[in-house]
Amino acid sequence: ALLKKTLGLKTTTTVATSRSFKEDRIWLNGKEEDITHPRLQSCLREIRRLARKRHNDGDATSTELTGLSQKVHICSVNNFPTAAGLASSAAGFACLVYSLAQSFGVEGELSGVARQGSGSACRSMYGGFVQWIMGNQEDGKDSLAQQVEPESHWPELRILVLVANAERKPVGSTSGMQTSVQTSCLLKHRAESVVPHRMEEMIKAVRGRDFPAFAELTMKDSNQFHATCLDTYPPIFYLNRVSQQVIHLVHRYNRHYGETRVAYSFDAGPNAVIFTLQQHVPEFVHFIQHFFPPETNGEDFIKGLPVKRAAVSEQLKQSVGLEPMPKGINYIISTKAGPGPRVVKDPSLHLLSPDGFPKL
Amino acid sequence: ALLKKTLGLKTTTTVATSRSFKEDRIWLNGKEEDITHPRLQSCLREIRRLARKRHNDGDATSTELTGLSQKVHICSVNNFPTAAGLASSAAGFACLVYSLAQSFGVEGELSGVARQGSGSACRSMYGGFVQWIMGNQEDGKDSLAQQVEPESHWPELRILVLVANAERKPVGSTSGMQTSVQTSCLLKHRAESVVPHRMEEMIKAVRGRDFPAFAELTMKDSNQFHATCLDTYPPIFYLNRVSQQVIHLVHRYNRHYGETRVAYSFDAGPNAVIFTLQQHVPEFVHFIQHFFPPETNGEDFIKGLPVKRAAVSEQLKQSVGLEPMPKGINYIISTKAGPGPRVVKDPSLHLLSPDGFPKL
Repeated sequence: ALLKKTLGLKTTTTVATSRSFKEDRIWLNGKEEDITHPRLQSCLREIRRLARKRHNDGDATSTELTGLSQKVHICSVNNFPTAAGLASSAAGFACLVYSLAQSFGVEGELSGVARQGSGSACRSMYGGFVQWIMGNQEDGKDSLAQQVEPESHWPELRILVLVANAERKPVGSTSGMQTSVQTSCLLKHRAESVVPHRMEEMIKAVRGRDFPAFAELTMKDSNQFHATCLDTYPPIFYLNRVSQQVIHLVHRYNRHYGETRVAYSFDAGPNAVIFTLQQHVPEFVHFIQHFFPPETNGEDFIKGLPVKRAAVSEQLKQSVGLEPMPKGINYIISTKAGPGPRVVKDPSLHLLSPDGFPKL
Repeated sequence: ALLKKTLGLKTTTTVATSRSFKEDRIWLNGKEEDITHPRLQSCLREIRRLARKRHNDGDATSTELTGLSQKVHICSVNNFPTAAGLASSAAGFACLVYSLAQSFGVEGELSGVARQGSGSACRSMYGGFVQWIMGNQEDGKDSLAQQVEPESHWPELRILVLVANAERKPVGSTSGMQTSVQTSCLLKHRAESVVPHRMEEMIKAVRGRDFPAFAELTMKDSNQFHATCLDTYPPIFYLNRVSQQVIHLVHRYNRHYGETRVAYSFDAGPNAVIFTLQQHVPEFVHFIQHFFPPETNGEDFIKGLPVKRAAVSEQLKQSVGLEPMPKGINYIISTKAGPGPRVVKDPSLHLLSPDGFPKL
């Protein structure tokens, strides 16, 4: 994706240092994970290096200095399912790097550090509308994120995450992007000849709050990303039948109204991220609920920001002309562009108890 | 597809002219169709023009001359389901143009006429391995087909058509290629920078009967065609979950054996065309039957050229690691590269009775 919208899904991370800790440890969503993971280690090492540099420059406080010589306990939870493919590692690493930096008193540009955890984590270091600048250096050091506009810039813009019911275990696509870079002739053309221009157009659309332009660029760019996945050898498929149905529904919804009211975007998975303006949210959510009848009576179908009830006209249903796909979507998360990482002041919300172990 | 293999599926067409016919008429698979269809009219007009030219040059026989002034009855049947998306219009128009030409005594290069019926019909004017040369002229007049090798060149090469069970009505994609030309940035790049080189490589692979090279080019080219469909706006999807499963199965089958034994290709539909060598046909067919358990006991599952029984090892099944998809494939047509259109001499096989109406 050209421009990553922070999705309003939340990751909370608490970091503690103590003389009594014997080793660095990490708990993710209630389960201890392997701290020796190379990307985790990169982030830890880099933050400690920056903290030491700050110390050598004489800028660190005494608490920060003490922390630097001690082991760290990290505890992190997401308010959304990790497995759902909702960029949990991007949010997680951004939050981790921010928390470690706060803890060790490291300041300044941190998206480069976050990128070492997860490429797209660099974007999540900022709120609102963020541009990830590719950079030219071989080692990626100039591949950084930059805020285009804060989340307050376009408050009417709303986001719906349609969490697809993956009937079948997706076929593994580890290191997908690397294989694409190596094997797709179309990817190179996309990166060199298509993305730079689209990026400019996208920034213009966001700055001017031009929804139709924003929407069309978002959809075309999502489709082209998935086209390069298909041009990868062997090919990679992230879009399943539910995703395809969502794509058809969005185009037919827009066609029915004769204007672009809704856009879709798909990351490396089948869940759609829908962008629309506030005034269209209630109808579109119920439109989706009609074409993906949920298992339950729709009680827990909508999570997140409240959505008013709305009717879907027979004309609209008929002009779409597609068969409903029962249980195709598990639930919808209703949200909007959020801020970047922030410090949680209230100690009752911290995830580690005073002894430095997970509260639960 | 770069190089169209004549699929061994058969279309039979009978053409009759008579003083007693009041108008041109056509019957397809037992049902009268609209003769005023523009592409049909183009073919009829063009053949009659060529016949008149031949007459003016003084080369026509008297029977041919008589026919030229009379109305024509056309009757055509396929030995495979038209709706299955197996290029029935390509075969149909090729056969029609050939039959009309025979009837009116028109000789010479006819792939240009067939192209006016259906673009890919120009390829079907020849047997074996055929190249469709794009051409440079705006009006497409230099876009013609040319035989690379006859079907006898590579007798070990076998073809399996996996007819997918389309659970859901496919979403219409009329004039798909035109929309792609207008909207896909990747298609232009593909046509200009990828296809010419691949075409050369493909001709080399066919001439040298180099199956692995042939197979890899076939798969990459199929994938890239579908990538440009996805890059079309709105996007076009021809591959469904069955197609995706076939793609994964082929790659994992080849990976298991550490060599490229099987290739897939998809046209504008979900049915896979599989290429493999004769010696691998029995195992691969039963491998497909295992991962797509048919509704019946597999009795009518295999049509066309006979396929010997074969066992599929547990190792192979396990190394694939995918769940079977019951009823995903309706049946398999086992075939091989065939000849181009030929005259059926036996009058008992003609489709029109002496009165010029369908025999039934």
